[in-house]
Amino acid sequence: MKKYGPINKKYPHILHGGDYNPEQWTDYDGVWDDDIRLMKLANCNTMSIGIFSWATLEPEEDSFDFSFLDEIMEEFEKNNINAVLATPSGARPAWMSEKYPEVLRVNADRTKNLHGGRHNHCYTSPYYRLKTQNINRLLAQRYKNHPSLLVWHISNEYGGECHCELCQSAFRQWLKNKYDNNLDKLNHEYWTKFWSHTYTSWEQIESPSPLGENLVHALNLDWKRFVTYQTIDFMKNEIAPIKDITPDIPVTTNLMGLYTGLDYFKFKDAIDVVSWDNYPEWHLPKGDVRLASDTAFVHDLNRCIKGGKPFMLMESTPSHINWLDVNKPKRPNMHILSSVQAVAHGSDTVQYFQWRKSRGSCEKFCGAVVDHCGHENTRVFKEVARLGSMLDKLDDIVGTAVKSEVAVIYDWENRWAIDDLKGLKITDRNYAATCQNHYYPFWKNGINTDVIDSDCDFSKYKLIVAPMLYMIKPNVIEKIKEFVKNGGTIVFTYISGWVNENDLCFLGGFPADELKNVFGIWAEETDCLYIGESNLVELNTGEKYKAIDFCDIIHANTAEVLAKYKSDYYTDMPAVTFNKYGSGSAYYIAFRDEGDFMIDFYEKLILDLKLEKALDTTFPEGVTAHSRHDEECRYIFIENYNNFTRKFILPNNKYIDIITNVEALMEFSIEPYGVKVLKTM
Amino acid sequence: MKKYGPINKKYPHILHGGDYNPEQWTDYDGVWDDDIRLMKLANCNTMSIGIFSWATLEPEEDSFDFSFLDEIMEEFEKNNINAVLATPSGARPAWMSEKYPEVLRVNADRTKNLHGGRHNHCYTSPYYRLKTQNINRLLAQRYKNHPSLLVWHISNEYGGECHCELCQSAFRQWLKNKYDNNLDKLNHEYWTKFWSHTYTSWEQIESPSPLGENLVHALNLDWKRFVTYQTIDFMKNEIAPIKDITPDIPVTTNLMGLYTGLDYFKFKDAIDVVSWDNYPEWHLPKGDVRLASDTAFVHDLNRCIKGGKPFMLMESTPSHINWLDVNKPKRPNMHILSSVQAVAHGSDTVQYFQWRKSRGSCEKFCGAVVDHCGHENTRVFKEVARLGSMLDKLDDIVGTAVKSEVAVIYDWENRWAIDDLKGLKITDRNYAATCQNHYYPFWKNGINTDVIDSDCDFSKYKLIVAPMLYMIKPNVIEKIKEFVKNGGTIVFTYISGWVNENDLCFLGGFPADELKNVFGIWAEETDCLYIGESNLVELNTGEKYKAIDFCDIIHANTAEVLAKYKSDYYTDMPAVTFNKYGSGSAYYIAFRDEGDFMIDFYEKLILDLKLEKALDTTFPEGVTAHSRHDEECRYIFIENYNNFTRKFILPNNKYIDIITNVEALMEFSIEPYGVKVLKTM
Amino acid sequence: MKKYGPINKKYPHILHGGDYNPEQWTDYDGVWDDDIRLMKLANCNTMSIGIFSWATLEPEEDSFDFSFLDEIMEEFEKNNINAVLATPSGARPAWMSEKYPEVLRVNADRTKNLHGGRHNHCYTSPYYRLKTQNINRLLAQRYKNHPSLLVWHISNEYGGECHCELCQSAFRQWLKNKYDNNLDKLNHEYWTKFWSHTYTSWEQIESPSPLGENLVHALNLDWKRFVTYQTIDFMKNEIAPIKDITPDIPVTTNLMGLYTGLDYFKFKDAIDVVSWDNYPEWHLPKGDVRLASDTAFVHDLNRCIKGGKPFMLMESTPSHINWLDVNKPKRPNMHILSSVQAVAHGSDTVQYFQWRKSRGSCEKFCGAVVDHCGHENTRVFKEVARLGSMLDKLDDIVGTAVKSEVAVIYDWENRWAIDDLKGLKITDRNYAATCQNHYYPFWKNGINTDVIDSDCDFSKYKLIVAPMLYMIKPNVIEKIKEFVKNGGTIVFTYISGWVNENDLCFLGGFPADELKNVFGIWAEETDCLYIGESNLVELNTGEKYKAIDFCDIIHANTAEVLAKYKSDYYTDMPAVTFNKYGSGSAYYIAFRDEGDFMIDFYEKLILDLKLEKALDTTFPEGVTAHSRHDEECRYIFIENYNNFTRKFILPNNKYIDIITNVEALMEFSIEPYGVKVLKTM
Repeated sequence: MKKYGPINKKYPHILHGGDYNPEQWTDYDGVWDDDIRLMKLANCNTMSIGIFSWATLEPEEDSFDFSFLDEIMEEFEKNNINAVLATPSGARPAWMSEKYPEVLRVNADRTKNLHGGRHNHCYTSPYYRLKTQNINRLLAQRYKNHPSLLVWHISNEYGGECHCELCQSAFRQWLKNKYDNNLDKLNHEYWTKFWSHTYTSWEQIESPSPLGENLVHALNLDWKRFVTYQTIDFMKNEIAPIKDITPDIPVTTNLMGLYTGLDYFKFKDAIDVVSWDNYPEWHLPKGDVRLASDTAFVHDLNRCIKGGKPFMLMESTPSHINWLDVNKPKRPNMHILSSVQAVAHGSDTVQYFQWRKSRGSCEKFCGAVVDHCGHENTRVFKEVARLGSMLDKLDDIVGTAVKSEVAVIYDWENRWAIDDLKGLKITDRNYAATCQNHYYPFWKNGINTDVIDSDCDFSKYKLIVAPMLYMIKPNVIEKIKEFVKNGGTIVFTYISGWVNENDLCFLGGFPADELKNVFGIWAEETDCLYIGESNLVELNTGEKYKAIDFCDIIHANTAEVLAKYKSDYYTDMPAVTFNKYGSGSAYYIAFRDEGDFMIDFYEKLILDLKLEKALDTTFPEGVTAHSRHDEECRYIFIENYNNFTRKFILPNNKYIDIITNVEALMEFSIEPYGVKVLKTM
Repeated sequence: MKKYGPINKKYPHILHGGDYNPEQWTDYDGVWDDDIRLMKLANCNTMSIGIFSWATLEPEEDSFDFSFLDEIMEEFEKNNINAVLATPSGARPAWMSEKYPEVLRVNADRTKNLHGGRHNHCYTSPYYRLKTQNINRLLAQRYKNHPSLLVWHISNEYGGECHCELCQSAFRQWLKNKYDNNLDKLNHEYWTKFWSHTYTSWEQIESPSPLGENLVHALNLDWKRFVTYQTIDFMKNEIAPIKDITPDIPVTTNLMGLYTGLDYFKFKDAIDVVSWDNYPEWHLPKGDVRLASDTAFVHDLNRCIKGGKPFMLMESTPSHINWLDVNKPKRPNMHILSSVQAVAHGSDTVQYFQWRKSRGSCEKFCGAVVDHCGHENTRVFKEVARLGSMLDKLDDIVGTAVKSEVAVIYDWENRWAIDDLKGLKITDRNYAATCQNHYYPFWKNGINTDVIDSDCDFSKYKLIVAPMLYMIKPNVIEKIKEFVKNGGTIVFTYISGWVNENDLCFLGGFPADELKNVFGIWAEETDCLYIGESNLVELNTGEKYKAIDFCDIIHANTAEVLAKYKSDYYTDMPAVTFNKYGSGSAYYIAFRDEGDFMIDFYEKLILDLKLEKALDTTFPEGVTAHSRHDEECRYIFIENYNNFTRKFILPNNKYIDIITNVEALMEFSIEPYGVKVLKTM
Repeated sequence: MKKYGPINKKYPHILHGGDYNPEQWTDYDGVWDDDIRLMKLANCNTMSIGIFSWATLEPEEDSFDFSFLDEIMEEFEKNNINAVLATPSGARPAWMSEKYPEVLRVNADRTKNLHGGRHNHCYTSPYYRLKTQNINRLLAQRYKNHPSLLVWHISNEYGGECHCELCQSAFRQWLKNKYDNNLDKLNHEYWTKFWSHTYTSWEQIESPSPLGENLVHALNLDWKRFVTYQTIDFMKNEIAPIKDITPDIPVTTNLMGLYTGLDYFKFKDAIDVVSWDNYPEWHLPKGDVRLASDTAFVHDLNRCIKGGKPFMLMESTPSHINWLDVNKPKRPNMHILSSVQAVAHGSDTVQYFQWRKSRGSCEKFCGAVVDHCGHENTRVFKEVARLGSMLDKLDDIVGTAVKSEVAVIYDWENRWAIDDLKGLKITDRNYAATCQNHYYPFWKNGINTDVIDSDCDFSKYKLIVAPMLYMIKPNVIEKIKEFVKNGGTIVFTYISGWVNENDLCFLGGFPADELKNVFGIWAEETDCLYIGESNLVELNTGEKYKAIDFCDIIHANTAEVLAKYKSDYYTDMPAVTFNKYGSGSAYYIAFRDEGDFMIDFYEKLILDLKLEKALDTTFPEGVTAHSRHDEECRYIFIENYNNFTRKFILPNNKYIDIITNVEALMEFSIEPYGVKVLKTM
């Protein structure tokens, strides 16, 4: 496959480094020198700086002091270290909150925040927009020609929402645009005759609040869409002067995985490269295998935001974090494994929060390359250094693509709607986990998979899996029909095709409209099961599975029934169906299973559809492989998420281990939490 | 027994139908026609309309549009469908909140609500009172002669409370009335010398608040009494113009079972007929039997609010609801069973929320007769239609009474006081469940039972069971003495007779005053048991039972000791006592049992007192019977709450199944979730 | 050892009595007479009065009525009853809140309280300070020569905090004092460059708030220190006129055990005698033994606040309390046992909340000597009277000291810092419980133990146990070095020596600085274990123990390794070390054990260090002994926390039971919940 370029063409290597706060140590002699020395020892080449530096850069209004940045950038230049330079809007100086309270966020309950914390400004405030543009412009002007400047890091982990009057006005304006300035149209979509909620002026509309309206689902959805819109609008305002001055330096902002508050697919056109902060909770008592798959899912999603372009692992921890219930240090090897996993799924960087533990405040016990002891003689430092030396050997992989024949749909707006649904079961809806569970059989079999939303292009896949696609957004029915007609295979589940983009139910029976023909079924009602309750599902071929949580009770029209329920009042009703539609196939899985059915079902589909594996072998439990491709060869990452050694047989090919540059043995052995990178010959 | 008339004498049939919102579908061609067609197919005769229609009826201030109501009422008339016509005060138009913020409720923490939701207006607001009267008057004038108008449905599910300044003033005025304008009297009853709480002006009194006073129990109680008073006062204000204009149309408001916020017994004189909304959580893993008994308890309570007059089941679901943790569809037959259960206990209607699922907003997934598919080919629709055809055969039952020899006391003010009690155990007080547990042995044995509060007439019963009657309201001691002296039997339990109506402890030992003589005991202290802990109680006759949660440690004065504790420091102290008092009997059960003791104890009492059963037989587990009576015969409802068939032997009488008009076989068989209605010959 | 004097030299007896509210009963004829009669029957000699009497004493502003106090003091004098006279600031009259809202507390979320409750005034309000001084002055002037006046009871259970503008100003002033008016110094200690938190004016500093700053740990700590400071400052303001007028009457305020909100060690110079309110949750299903030890810990702590001077048990319950989940009556004997336990640990009083149950409001079901029945024929009254007659025989014990060779460090500021720590495990840090667990082996072996904070004198002990001493306050390193050098033995655990007093991490490796030399180790990282997870620790001598929750991974420098971990990646790393330092010894226990290790470890240390036991014997489980000493002999309290009889052999000495005045048998038997007081000959 065609390679993408490196993130910044002037540095065609895997980036390795972390968030670095030199301004915290200006009073501590020798710390900067130690840092530079240790960066080299750790084989780090890139540091993120300037995050949260606003109070240092602009200690009082319109009075600036860039000296610490000047100095550290000079150090970086001298020592061949790249800078990912941040704009400082993630936290503002105290003087600003004091003098311009409009920058303070207002909560959903309409209380106004005091100054404090971070990530909590009003996104609409004209003053804050002015000041962020201003400081960004100064930064861009000052460092535009600096050789160390590699990437712009816009703000930090955008999130949250503001309900101030400025935001209320902006929201109303956004609604006017969406509804063509037509309040009747909004009233229809919000179904406001229910409970006498009809709006007779735009001013009556307020953002959802625990003290006011919170049960009009379409309002809740629009508010979330507005929050994404306004956040991106704020970000674009930040980016504008930077793009003006440094058009060739790529910009990114660090996303937060499956964070529910923002629809990250909407960010795709506003940034040059996707980056994200990855903090899996390794070493839970249940083991690391499923978590590895769930994490891979999020890597794949981040890669798909910009259509497959390599992304940046902007933050990860060298050891433990500090905000979980139990913050466990990563076991030996796990740091290398989990870092290289990101690369396997398309990351061209391995970056950390944080380079050095701060002395005070609330992240001082979050893992870092350099601990409070200040030296390199720690287990954690040594593993980081070992990883750095491995990454140095992966230059060929920079910019390579991931080729996927399968896509799993994970759609933020669908998630919002499912989470807000009044009915069925309050708990255990688990939309995200359900998508991850449907992803797992592919991960387990070493099959590259894309994770897309329902607005993405479907045409390039053989198979699309759309779990719980409760909300069918505009054009999706047409896209599905087209996809299946043309030979594609689609899998739907229970609770699918119920509402349109404004949470209005489709009339005429579920799933919506033509989907009944695509799948050849009609879904009459949904049984909800208590924890501990189950139904039994039996395939025509005799295998039996447990149904839990949700059982759609469906009628097969044109569909073939592949499995039936075997208990309760819907005994012998269809549980799995198959329908030919055009040249393609449509499966409907009416029940939630505990996992076994999905594995058997998708493994059969993998064979039927001849989906390509990274390695054509059978992996032992907890071992898998994923691949990146360039025009000539494939790079295969083999990962062992067990804390013991695993062995298996490689296919009859020639593979070179590109770390050791030695040909791999067919009887392949992989150490506890081990990872290998092979190259096809 | 003498029959009551039908709810409205112009329609002497069981009402069958549901909440119907035609205004939501005015833009959807054909839906109204479908509705009328489907109502007939479903054997429905009565629809509730106008609930939450205010924004449609008065789209801007003082500008009215009754067209949709005119049209649907005309449709109803043409198709012989009755209307239960609602006043719209349950939710107000947005323009009203915008223009008159005094209508917005203030919470206990003194935050003021924004517009939104429903059921959340200030009950004191002069403007809201004016506007509700006004629209009610217009409705009454417009439809006073309409042949379809059958019943007035006043507002919807009154509830909640407002703490605004208008309400604070009204509360103070209510207190002045109660305490004869004498602050010293209030200070004494509130025991305000405790913690220096003495009020020296009426203005110092504020409603209970998490931010202020919340530990003066008598204040808390008075506030709850005021909330009931003010709610009824608001309702009376709504009813006034309606009664003026349509004195012959009965008015009701839909109550919410054991909702704690309002003392429903106080509603008795303000409405013509009681109605309530019944949403039991059928099909929990623990099965349906106890829930059926608990539900019967609430039906009986609603019947007793107006002294035994048949009530209306105003809302119930044809299938599932949408606000439980797990919203399970009713299993086949359960809808018919649970609907006829209501009739068995005195309902003359079976009505639903809702006729048709709305397309949008938060109740679109609450069960309905007509689903989003819009047609009649659903399991749910068919069962509703089948029920409708059964109800058509029950005309003779309309207006018949229920004859009870037993009453269980369930007293709202006592509940408030117990819930607010500081001491004993924080959890597991379970006053309502305790009353329901003491009711269960009678239900299980097919014995009609009344559920009354302590202000009701005691004289008509043979047996009164008063569990946990912690609060003894004025005159209750005299009523009990009179009742027992005249031959009645009374049962008291642990934690009884401790405080007066203002939560002041009785001095001189518990239970209060003369009750010590009625029961012949003195209660010294109460042991509280942890979950998992128990004591052992042994009857003189040798049977042993487990005591849990609460053990009163009592001394028998004149009483005979029927059972003793057998462990801990109160070994051999009395656990159950019996005392002759006048011609009557008084039992004191000093401990809480897990249920077995109550069954044995009350089954013995049933025999001793020769209490009449609906059917003189022994029912299999989960089967019971209840009866309604007219001057000539008894109507016996036999109910099977098991999901399998049950058989038993009918007494040696002649019974006609009035649904099939066939004589019942002595070897009586009843299908899963089955219900039969027999008539004595 | 040298005796302290009695609390007030005019009454050299154990005080016995309780909180008494005669003002609640002025309208009830005969209650006062009954009270006096019953006090004598109960062998009570001292009553606390005037707590919460403000509204009675000053019913309107500047209008006073001391009549009820005059009268009850006269009664006391006539009947030889002492008064512990309270200042009334614990709750204020309603008129004051109404007229001077500045006295109302503002919460952390900046909501202002309404009037209500108690213990909720602003500590800074100039008006409230003026008014409390004023009423205290009037009380002191009025009763200064009254023969019944024995002790001043200042306010009641100080606690909580106020965030009003007056308090914000006072906090800023306190900070200016602490940081020498130097904002840079504060910025450094708060490490404010993190997240751009730099303050550029003092006015920007606000108290921690859920709506504002709450993650700057040093700010959180300073706020808590300020709250302690301001509370004591308020108290001193209350005390000033009292000390002026009655310099010889001792003052106390009742503390609340391990209440987290105030650093009680800071109270030592402001009060003449420590008193505290002790409400252990006896009779939990897990039994009473560990709770007895935990309670002893708090008694010892209270004794150590004023360096060992006997304290007052100001409140305890004669039976049950009313604010637990399950409020169980004390089993027979437990009241005497738990009361004498206090005396064993240094209390010269046994006092209750409350003498008589109030008729109304929220403490009417809290245990009392006199119940609502009003007479003496209750189990509880009789046990109080029996205890009174025992205490009458303990005059010799008044003023005697407790001699301890061991101290356990429990440090409030360390607790605040640990509770606020972001990292490790969120739950299960359990600092207080960990200190109590390390105290238990000494309690179990009948070894008198002091509980001190890290600012106390270390030099008088043989052994200091400092569990989880995460925060090392100024001079503590020097004190530890001095102590060990001079032959002392110190025990440290996991998570120790991490931060300075402002929660800034020590650089250069943990534990801080020279402590690495004292213990001869370096702690690299800390593993956190899930509930259910464990590591295995094996001593060199072969014994094995389970490690849970926290495992420090340490390196032995000069230390000898006594035990090693036996699983996970730190297998064979040190788990327990021993280091000689000067003439002393330093142990480091790197893991948390479930209790068995601690018992074995400390029992060995007890032998090694020849620590003195109250009785040189082996106690059966649940039995222990503690001792008080005067210049001539020792008073030994033997306590049995089992609900069955226990036997053991007394050492070969002569002991007189000072209750019965009979010599104790060598085969010593002690009844269920029994307590004996022996005197050495």
